[in-house]
Amino acid sequence: MHCGIKHEKKDLALFYSETPAAVAGTFTTNQVQAAPVKLCRQRIRTGSIQALVVNSGNANACTGPQGMQDAETMARLVGASLSISPTKVLVCSTGHIGHPLPMEKFTQGIPEAASRLSRQGYIDAAEAILTTDTHRKLASVKVMVGDTAVLLTIVAKGSGMIEPNMATMLAFCFTDAAVQPAALQSLLSDAVEQSFNRITVDGDRSTNDTVLLLANGQAGNDVLSPTHTDWPAFREALFSVTLDAAKTIVQDGEGATKVVTVHVTGARSETDAEEAARAVANSSLIKTSWAGGQANWGRVMDAVGYSRAMIVEEAIDIDYDGQPAVRGGLYAGTNQEALDQITQQDSFTLGIDLHQGSGEAMVYSCDTTEEYVRINVEE
Amino acid sequence: MHCGIKHEKKDLALFYSETPAAVAGTFTTNQVQAAPVKLCRQRIRTGSIQALVVNSGNANACTGPQGMQDAETMARLVGASLSISPTKVLVCSTGHIGHPLPMEKFTQGIPEAASRLSRQGYIDAAEAILTTDTHRKLASVKVMVGDTAVLLTIVAKGSGMIEPNMATMLAFCFTDAAVQPAALQSLLSDAVEQSFNRITVDGDRSTNDTVLLLANGQAGNDVLSPTHTDWPAFREALFSVTLDAAKTIVQDGEGATKVVTVHVTGARSETDAEEAARAVANSSLIKTSWAGGQANWGRVMDAVGYSRAMIVEEAIDIDYDGQPAVRGGLYAGTNQEALDQITQQDSFTLGIDLHQGSGEAMVYSCDTTEEYVRINVEE
Repeated sequence: MHCGIKHEKKDLALFYSETPAAVAGTFTTNQVQAAPVKLCRQRIRTGSIQALVVNSGNANACTGPQGMQDAETMARLVGASLSISPTKVLVCSTGHIGHPLPMEKFTQGIPEAASRLSRQGYIDAAEAILTTDTHRKLASVKVMVGDTAVLLTIVAKGSGMIEPNMATMLAFCFTDAAVQPAALQSLLSDAVEQSFNRITVDGDRSTNDTVLLLANGQAGNDVLSPTHTDWPAFREALFSVTLDAAKTIVQDGEGATKVVTVHVTGARSETDAEEAARAVANSSLIKTSWAGGQANWGRVMDAVGYSRAMIVEEAIDIDYDGQPAVRGGLYAGTNQEALDQITQQDSFTLGIDLHQGSGEAMVYSCDTTEEYVRINVEE
Repeated sequence: MHCGIKHEKKDLALFYSETPAAVAGTFTTNQVQAAPVKLCRQRIRTGSIQALVVNSGNANACTGPQGMQDAETMARLVGASLSISPTKVLVCSTGHIGHPLPMEKFTQGIPEAASRLSRQGYIDAAEAILTTDTHRKLASVKVMVGDTAVLLTIVAKGSGMIEPNMATMLAFCFTDAAVQPAALQSLLSDAVEQSFNRITVDGDRSTNDTVLLLANGQAGNDVLSPTHTDWPAFREALFSVTLDAAKTIVQDGEGATKVVTVHVTGARSETDAEEAARAVANSSLIKTSWAGGQANWGRVMDAVGYSRAMIVEEAIDIDYDGQPAVRGGLYAGTNQEALDQITQQDSFTLGIDLHQGSGEAMVYSCDTTEEYVRINVEE
């Protein structure tokens, strides 16, 4: 719903589980952390959550002790409206940094949101958490656990301030599956590592990034744990929805017109592969050349060269969607226009083989357009 | 002069000293290094140089063994034209990566350049080394060594692919002073560390960066060495011309409209100060907010937080030209419009005090405009 933090758009979402849910979370690695992030970090330790309130338009970051009080007040308002303990309520905020929350909006807004809860509410909620995003990010998948169908739903947001290791992004995964609480955190951390931690829009990392996984067991399945026969299927489903949501964030990156998968192979280690992929995925010069539909592989050689990955110039191969651009560090002779055309597609894969070992990594990025600058100048 | 590598503009510069000059150099830290960089690295070890040839329009990078041969051929053509040993010739190239040099242009061009040498040639030479730069970067300063006036001249280029630790930038310092050869390299390295290594336009580091210092002793002064009374004055003059040239590069950054000095103090160490300053100076979101004339200090808090510097959120102070924006991690209450106005100037200083120690560093950056994207999309 709209409660008055933004001018007109929806800005308040409330998620509620009729029974307590097991919970796991991953958070921004920024040393400056918003008040709601601090609150979530504390509360997920209790292991059991029943509601989540999210506002957009104001990040409640760099707001000091007042900010912590405000986040706690939000949880208290939710607790009172739903007759649950405020300690069972998580809080997330996204938007501008450094301004105190207009708390009076929540005094009316939160009880009203509580009165309007519905099973179809996901769609409105997915809209209410957006900031500069141009569309909702929402997906559901069904998984069989024994004879029981369990549902996994993800609601996400993110468009700018997006970098490795969490960005201005929020993603909430809800499932009615019963899952062993002890197994939940490592499951989520693994999924995030291969999805939200592998995307970049502008190389900035926000103060508010949060990914949560809540499992309330209402499906009535046998409790899932790593030894359960259907664990791999459930794990696969979570990996798949988080990766899809992560790619949707890149696709909706501020001003972006295309998604590029940077796939590094043959690195000395996985870390090296990631370093090389991130250097390429974050280079302003490479990202602008994608906007221009140019396969400027010279800039790719340059970025790989200044990355922390160990490389040997003469060993590097570069491909655009499998078409060779560079072989052994030199131009491969493929028609340049044919390579350029690949970069003019909505999406393509930039393959880089370092021939130094078996380290491999993928990072998902987008192009940098004049529109990106326009959005961030005006905001 | 124009020899035909670019369409119309000057693209070839030749510098010549009638007597051998002592030489020092610093080069890109990129693992991918252009052929002329490799050639210069080898030749400056001989300690004595008489000529320098520079072309723009083609970087002779990622060109393999052919590229090395071509760089050596350029030196040979210079040697033949000036009747000096080719081993006394340095070579620099700047421009597009990955294309072989059109060597036939030099067969005519280099002898012609040699026939047109003049003492006033610096101005044309400063033009011939430019790529996307919008104007020449050239400065001279006179220093007294005893009773002898010595001249220090710098010719530089650089506009995009500019980051810490050398960028697509070339800078040549020439002096007629006699300087102890053994003292020359550390003198240059110290000067570069506080100037060219402290600027950033877009966070990319090129394959061709080179700074050279040549001292031919023609002024006839007492040989300068660190124990000479006038050493501090000469050192100061070199620091001053290199810093001025470095700032000119930022000012002429692709699409840039303003120069911003990011000044971090109170860091736990000098390294920490530099890490924090670079994170701020390279943030796309901060650089676009400068383009919009906005003092978005929340984005500065965010970048300081994700830098590798150790910080305590509650201890951070931020100033724009001395006007307090943040005190103790919170909004200082200064009128936001007054802060915005400071960022609308041609230049301003963003002061960040971490209150963790006495580490201090300055990094010079510029704003990111739509024009930056346009230039790099079209290039």
